[in-house]
Amino acid sequence: MGSNPDGKTAKRGPYAKSRLRRESIVTAAHQVFAAHGYRGGSLQDVADKVGMSQTSLLHYFPSKSELLLAVLVLRDSVAAGEIARASDGIPAGLEESFVDAVIRQARFNETVPGVIELYTVLCAESLTEDHPGKAYFTDRYQRLRESYARRFRALAEEGRLREGVDPARAAATLIAVWDGIQTQWLMAPENIDMAGCLRDYLDLVVLPG
Amino acid sequence: MGSNPDGKTAKRGPYAKSRLRRESIVTAAHQVFAAHGYRGGSLQDVADKVGMSQTSLLHYFPSKSELLLAVLVLRDSVAAGEIARASDGIPAGLEESFVDAVIRQARFNETVPGVIELYTVLCAESLTEDHPGKAYFTDRYQRLRESYARRFRALAEEGRLREGVDPARAAATLIAVWDGIQTQWLMAPENIDMAGCLRDYLDLVVLPG
Repeated sequence: MGSNPDGKTAKRGPYAKSRLRRESIVTAAHQVFAAHGYRGGSLQDVADKVGMSQTSLLHYFPSKSELLLAVLVLRDSVAAGEIARASDGIPAGLEESFVDAVIRQARFNETVPGVIELYTVLCAESLTEDHPGKAYFTDRYQRLRESYARRFRALAEEGRLREGVDPARAAATLIAVWDGIQTQWLMAPENIDMAGCLRDYLDLVVLPG
Repeated sequence: MGSNPDGKTAKRGPYAKSRLRRESIVTAAHQVFAAHGYRGGSLQDVADKVGMSQTSLLHYFPSKSELLLAVLVLRDSVAAGEIARASDGIPAGLEESFVDAVIRQARFNETVPGVIELYTVLCAESLTEDHPGKAYFTDRYQRLRESYARRFRALAEEGRLREGVDPARAAATLIAVWDGIQTQWLMAPENIDMAGCLRDYLDLVVLPG
């Protein structure tokens, strides 16, 4: 928690202690929401985990929904850091790395089941009425589809997208494979090869360079 | 609710009224759990919807978890009826219908967003600790993977599975595409072509007959 995946450390300053406290609350909330969902997990559970009163916790996060959004931001920084960099920051001519980056990220995800469970549970829960995570997930999927569609269009321009494959639909399908296989892996990790299924799909749509 | 998808009507008899009451409770619970999840939806919400007291409701379903299982059985009979028949009951030599049946089911699903939402929300929620739907979903996925793998192996024997495609992994991937694309469709129905994405995937792995 004290360092981001890109190696930057947390800022030092007069609010360092308060910042550490916030981080420990968010980490605890991450665990509680992953285990019980947002609706099933209580602020009291989170407060118990960090050893503070619920009143003190509310000093840092005035509402459960604000705490949820902080958890989702943390989740992005931990789990999506690699793929975001791979997808957005690749110099032209290195598109090969898109496929490799997806597989790398999938293998990384196998090491953080709690993060994957949180994402899967909250994403589906955000479909329910008046859920505070709805806009976060809807926007995230829209951006992700656009980002992957750009990668597939770039591959198409190089003649490396299989004929007949539509970049926008392939983007939505890649995300679908990823999400869906994570759910199955969470249920039966010994039976499901997440990275293998993603590799299979990408091998079907992306031709060798 | 009074008739199953295969046209059989509910049994008549001395318990017909009680049976109808049970059915109306399960239908109401279906709506409540789809809108709020299992943990977020209360028995009181269900009782209010059918206009009975919570005590009366508990006469029919002694616990919320028993009501959940009844909802899941209902869900299967409504939404999975077509594909189950298509997948299990096809005479040898008619494997073409497997692909068509998946697409038909996907198009049908577009007409019942509430059923799809219920499934998506409860499936992910079942990953959380001590959820009463866990065994249902884990078993269901195991059976579904085996059923689809059989179909793909049959296609492979006819030389209609693309070379290099593993039937078991293709089965898990097909389910993943289906689940994942449903989630995206629930978030942005105007942007997502569920049946189109499934058709794209099946066109990649199944060769024309």
